[in-house]
Amino acid sequence: MAVRGNCIVGQSGGPTAVINASLSGVVSAALAAEQIGKVYGAVHGIEGVMKKQFVDFSELAKQADFLETLKVTPASFLGTCRFKLPKIEDKKEVFEAIFKVFEEYDIKFFFYIGGNDSMDTVAKISRYAKMINYDINVIGVPKTVDNDLLCTDHTPGFGSAAKYIAATVREVGLDSAVYDKQTVSVIEIMGRNAGWLTAAAALARDEHLAAPHLIYLPETTFSDDKIIADIKALFDKGVKNVVAVVSEGAKYADGRYVCEDVGTGATDSFGHKQLSGTAAVLGNKLSSTLGIRVRGIELSLCQRCAGHFTSLTDVTEAEMVGKAGVAEALNGGTGKMMIYVRVSENPYKIAIESRDIDTIANGEKMIPREWINEAGNDVTQDFINYARPLIMGETPIVYKDGVPNYVKLKK
Amino acid sequence: MAVRGNCIVGQSGGPTAVINASLSGVVSAALAAEQIGKVYGAVHGIEGVMKKQFVDFSELAKQADFLETLKVTPASFLGTCRFKLPKIEDKKEVFEAIFKVFEEYDIKFFFYIGGNDSMDTVAKISRYAKMINYDINVIGVPKTVDNDLLCTDHTPGFGSAAKYIAATVREVGLDSAVYDKQTVSVIEIMGRNAGWLTAAAALARDEHLAAPHLIYLPETTFSDDKIIADIKALFDKGVKNVVAVVSEGAKYADGRYVCEDVGTGATDSFGHKQLSGTAAVLGNKLSSTLGIRVRGIELSLCQRCAGHFTSLTDVTEAEMVGKAGVAEALNGGTGKMMIYVRVSENPYKIAIESRDIDTIANGEKMIPREWINEAGNDVTQDFINYARPLIMGETPIVYKDGVPNYVKLKK
Repeated sequence: MAVRGNCIVGQSGGPTAVINASLSGVVSAALAAEQIGKVYGAVHGIEGVMKKQFVDFSELAKQADFLETLKVTPASFLGTCRFKLPKIEDKKEVFEAIFKVFEEYDIKFFFYIGGNDSMDTVAKISRYAKMINYDINVIGVPKTVDNDLLCTDHTPGFGSAAKYIAATVREVGLDSAVYDKQTVSVIEIMGRNAGWLTAAAALARDEHLAAPHLIYLPETTFSDDKIIADIKALFDKGVKNVVAVVSEGAKYADGRYVCEDVGTGATDSFGHKQLSGTAAVLGNKLSSTLGIRVRGIELSLCQRCAGHFTSLTDVTEAEMVGKAGVAEALNGGTGKMMIYVRVSENPYKIAIESRDIDTIANGEKMIPREWINEAGNDVTQDFINYARPLIMGETPIVYKDGVPNYVKLKK
Repeated sequence: MAVRGNCIVGQSGGPTAVINASLSGVVSAALAAEQIGKVYGAVHGIEGVMKKQFVDFSELAKQADFLETLKVTPASFLGTCRFKLPKIEDKKEVFEAIFKVFEEYDIKFFFYIGGNDSMDTVAKISRYAKMINYDINVIGVPKTVDNDLLCTDHTPGFGSAAKYIAATVREVGLDSAVYDKQTVSVIEIMGRNAGWLTAAAALARDEHLAAPHLIYLPETTFSDDKIIADIKALFDKGVKNVVAVVSEGAKYADGRYVCEDVGTGATDSFGHKQLSGTAAVLGNKLSSTLGIRVRGIELSLCQRCAGHFTSLTDVTEAEMVGKAGVAEALNGGTGKMMIYVRVSENPYKIAIESRDIDTIANGEKMIPREWINEAGNDVTQDFINYARPLIMGETPIVYKDGVPNYVKLKK
């Protein structure tokens, strides 16, 4: 089969522990495809396309173990961006510029690995290509620790973050119980509007370990009085060391975020408020109300970039979905995002399919209300059954001098 | 050989990822020792002795895999305390009470696993025993992530925390570099007076990865002007994403802690100030001065209890030092702490010996000034050479449902 043209792959949005596994999957499949010539990586996503900042993966892949090491390296190897493309009608010149680059580099395939906002880019690029009749296959490869993309059973990155969170909450639960006194630990977990990662803390429990005792998600309304009553009720029941996990996006009935008391009020380029400080703010409040020391712990970036402790299921699927994206493009698909479909619960089994990007971009998937208990302070067994398979298996890591060996792009 | 009497083992001070490996070592050696009858665990350290709260390890060890699982379980299985024994002259009745329990339970061996403050307990108990001619062997088994005990080459717990910190700083370094803009990340690491753990972040570097770029230890004087100048100098040199690690105990020239602006001013029962918030306070200051977003990350408890990612060297040594403590007691030793002696640099090799507790208790070992660079913002290769062997090797973990399997004491 003759070479049809070259391809670009880019990464966008916040990094995850497995976004490079998807990149590795795209690159290895693209390098193997007879229809594809050069395999370019766009540095910093669509911004790199506009600036013609490319790396040549045919060259990089010549290094021994490059793709294997890339597969287990966290964060975005190519760099990422939060650039939001304008509406086509509003600023056509932006698209003209992008497609001029596509023409110059003979790009016939464009793969974009990202979350909600990145799928908006995929949607617009593929729509514009159709408008101007430019022959290109544009495919979105999902990625987000937040697990909030529509249509797909789950997102690459979620399982690894969930596994890290489960282990860490279990460990903090043990650590917080060593003194012979009542304690409260408040652990802040990522999730602006969807509580999937916070809910994943429930996977820390087993028949011996009860932490986390309380789980507060953005899908329900947060209340200071409620959490205080919940903690007191646990103390009354004889629980001595309460661990509560709270989403960074926890909100009061009036719509204010819990963290807003100290928040900077800053917004990112998509207009999202910068959230963090929920654990600190809440810890101080609880401490003064309950009259005991309350420890606030923010898992921060560590939860999304912990390459040293990823889910083998997640890494394997993330690589597969990258490869499947290339197969879809080679098959003529465009304007689509690859998705996971759970074809069997027990044993857990997924299939990878594709869906029209317009049904996905800019939407958000929340935890169904029936997976949250009535009191709004825990998840149900249905959630556990859903999430458990996604954290199974441990990825083998190559160590160098006692630290995981990762690759980094020389920019 | 006839049974001479029973033994008690206790844990004290802050938990670590390997304090239970030492406990497992003490327990397995004590169970195997013909001179030792019952092997009691004191719940919550010396407080448990006074309250006669004991567990019987002969019973617990009947569970399959109990000692093996205990060995890799983080935090203090027996629970711990921060109880400071009074001076013997001041409150003799406290010691009379303790020794009444010793007599009642026929205790001839007492093992106490802990840090600086716990070694004070070992010193006082052994001194009182000599005063009243009570036949008992009292041995301190070292433990502290802080690595600040005198006489010993390093402390059990340090290597695992250092390994976790190195991997996490490397991962945050990758994560912080994904956007095409200048960023500063400030990572707060444990260490009140001694900067060993913060210094361990230097182990994150390799020939590709430069983070952490700046290291501030409590052994040197912290200055806002200095860190700002250091960051600007890096920006001028073309470093785009600066990662600075700062000890929670970083102090200004006037003796104030960096975190004191928001600290609660609370002190623990040993009179130590509660520190935390350094990353947040500093992050805000830097952000307003530099005019860019600065992310403050506090590794918090996670760095000391990360059982999912421990140093095999550390776990192995921690178990060995527990066993060696029992051997020392059986050999007639008392009033001693076990120590590591580095007998060879290359290949790394240690011997386990003992030292009189009075030369150790209440002292603190700082990083030697010559292991810190002249500018006071980095460590030297000598520190790296010292610390590297301590993080080598990965401990095999048994997983259950995707999360490390740990044991917990039913209290």
